[in-house]
Amino acid sequence: MNNEFTVIPEGGVTSALGFKAGGIHAGFRKNPERLDMALVEADELCPAAGVFTQNIFCAAPVTVSREHLDGQGYGFARAMVINSGTANAATGSVGLENARKMAGIVADTVGCAPEDVLVASTGVIGTHLSMDPFEYGVPALHAELGKNGHDAACAIMTTDTVPKEAALSYTSADPDYLGIAFTVGGMSKGSGMIMPNMATMIACITTDAPVAPADLHACLKAAADASFNKVTVDGDTSTNDTCVALASGKAAPGAGFFKPGSVALKEFAAALNEVCQNLARQMARDGEGATKLVTVKVSGAATADDADKAARTVANSPLVKTAIAGHDANWGRIAGALGRSGACFQQEKVDIDIMGLPVLRQGLPVSFDEDKALRRFEEDEIVLDCNLGAGEFATTMWTCDFTHEYISINGDYRS
Amino acid sequence: MNNEFTVIPEGGVTSALGFKAGGIHAGFRKNPERLDMALVEADELCPAAGVFTQNIFCAAPVTVSREHLDGQGYGFARAMVINSGTANAATGSVGLENARKMAGIVADTVGCAPEDVLVASTGVIGTHLSMDPFEYGVPALHAELGKNGHDAACAIMTTDTVPKEAALSYTSADPDYLGIAFTVGGMSKGSGMIMPNMATMIACITTDAPVAPADLHACLKAAADASFNKVTVDGDTSTNDTCVALASGKAAPGAGFFKPGSVALKEFAAALNEVCQNLARQMARDGEGATKLVTVKVSGAATADDADKAARTVANSPLVKTAIAGHDANWGRIAGALGRSGACFQQEKVDIDIMGLPVLRQGLPVSFDEDKALRRFEEDEIVLDCNLGAGEFATTMWTCDFTHEYISINGDYRS
Repeated sequence: MNNEFTVIPEGGVTSALGFKAGGIHAGFRKNPERLDMALVEADELCPAAGVFTQNIFCAAPVTVSREHLDGQGYGFARAMVINSGTANAATGSVGLENARKMAGIVADTVGCAPEDVLVASTGVIGTHLSMDPFEYGVPALHAELGKNGHDAACAIMTTDTVPKEAALSYTSADPDYLGIAFTVGGMSKGSGMIMPNMATMIACITTDAPVAPADLHACLKAAADASFNKVTVDGDTSTNDTCVALASGKAAPGAGFFKPGSVALKEFAAALNEVCQNLARQMARDGEGATKLVTVKVSGAATADDADKAARTVANSPLVKTAIAGHDANWGRIAGALGRSGACFQQEKVDIDIMGLPVLRQGLPVSFDEDKALRRFEEDEIVLDCNLGAGEFATTMWTCDFTHEYISINGDYRS
Repeated sequence: MNNEFTVIPEGGVTSALGFKAGGIHAGFRKNPERLDMALVEADELCPAAGVFTQNIFCAAPVTVSREHLDGQGYGFARAMVINSGTANAATGSVGLENARKMAGIVADTVGCAPEDVLVASTGVIGTHLSMDPFEYGVPALHAELGKNGHDAACAIMTTDTVPKEAALSYTSADPDYLGIAFTVGGMSKGSGMIMPNMATMIACITTDAPVAPADLHACLKAAADASFNKVTVDGDTSTNDTCVALASGKAAPGAGFFKPGSVALKEFAAALNEVCQNLARQMARDGEGATKLVTVKVSGAATADDADKAARTVANSPLVKTAIAGHDANWGRIAGALGRSGACFQQEKVDIDIMGLPVLRQGLPVSFDEDKALRRFEEDEIVLDCNLGAGEFATTMWTCDFTHEYISINGDYRS
């Protein structure tokens, strides 16, 4: 199995063979310079998988995309269309009808069945989606589609300050695919999957590896659990979260799908994981108002669930996140968050490090040089290590610091 | 049963017969004008009950107070001493020794057993508690104790901007205590019990009603669950949370404890509930950086647990709280929080009102006058009503808005 990946500079959703994409200003937003519609199109119908928000107030496009993946999260698809500006959530039967029309317009333009189109929307909740921008925009966008994943990544941004793209390639060590180079790339927006900003998490991943729909779904679910689901900005889960993967198989035409349990499938799973984690870290770093990426590592947990609870509680703690914004090595708040997380441990066994600096050992504070600590907070990424001393389970979560800017962005979002 | 309560203007922890209190600057804090030690003393040993933090990183004074209430949360006590400035948390065996010394010094001064003294501390975590301020301060404070609950309430403040006090009296309708006037009063600091600010929630309630220790504990637990445990500022639970009740019985000397199941005990439970809710609302209103009290009412839940989950998720949502700070009737964020809360319901059945203004009916937005909505946000208290349309259970939680000031307070707390 080959675990060596080659990062593709400026790679994204069109790095893999068999995909075109682009983004335009279709008119969902007032500012004519702001791209607001993205289209990702496979050359032919290809295996597709999706994972979606668990929020009861799920948006109409989520319902429609779920239907188009046969209600089981996988099937085949030809294209994915995404608009920003309006979420088409809390819009009832009219909203469902609009999401279906959205798929229909793309299907007519691309030349496929409406069921082969996946849809996603992001933006303000409770407003009906205007159909005109699709009527005019989809044919225009389709006409100019190309290897332009960057515009697609820009078109799906809402409060994001930068587009998020990643791509890598690797050469298979599987005897059946020996020496073949596969590519996995993607784009995303927003800030997390289980605990995302209401501005919604949307991701589209493409690959030229030949992966069967059910396998693609299993790999995507595992990768999302270890990446997007480990990102939290503010603990709020969106109504529109959608993560889709499309697999063209173009890097190994005619070779057949990767076999279940094969080296090739494991290689692909690892590569997908890598791309998703890269995008997830980009999303945490670009959390609303964030100045820093915060990586919370928990080890020594008694169970995997305990590790997740402990890391998630620290990563969601406004007190921890404001302390980091204030460059304050306030381990007491980290200890307090661990203690209320629901994870089982004894306080006398806990160690905490902030940026490699031991601040708590066996539940007792370690005196440290405050100036030295302050300098470590100047880094772009702040790493917190918590060892619960209760077992062998570990996990990593990503979040960001909590700043004045977060309040400004969210206090004035609609006005 | 008499449910009519008479509020005692400027009443507090010394309103009930049989209690003296006071507060001084003992030296835990640098600023000599800031009171930092409170003592509440009963004239004689009296029934006492306590409820404490569930945080694994519980502080030394919590461990000692639990021991002094026989590990079961109730027993007898003579006095409660509280310092602010240092939390005596994450301080290991030295911390436990100091908390015991703190009780011993008070016991020597008051003239009781150390086990009859309850202790609480609030402030910075991980710093050892200095004993000198107790050595000099406790005798000085004891000498000047009187009906001075106000200074005690001021002495326990940390990031609180105002002291929290409440007291009421009522006349019993129980045949055994007919016409006797009982008083319940108390003080508190911080911002919640289950979900408080790391600055800690501490409350001390006194009454002159004759309540047996176990009954006092049952009433206190129920009252705390419906008040302090329904307050959340930021979801962070402190290591030091402590809520104590003391019952002197002085309003009905020689009459014996209220009988289990009696009208008198029910009256007392209702009065205690009222005082705790009053203090809880004061705490939410004074949440760090808060400009508004936010009351979240959830009705129509399928279970009591669903009602609590739904209300707690809305009350803890940074997106909801920043929207309120920004005077934004952003019901989409409320719907999103309900949808991810874990409560069971259908989005097509949900109604939401903001300050009495219907904004969502049967899962669909109701158009409303934005100017009219904006004016309603000028009130001091913002009320959100959410009907899940799934059952008969309801609850109320209190929180506050989320402002720039919160970030400033918590980003710069230690520096």
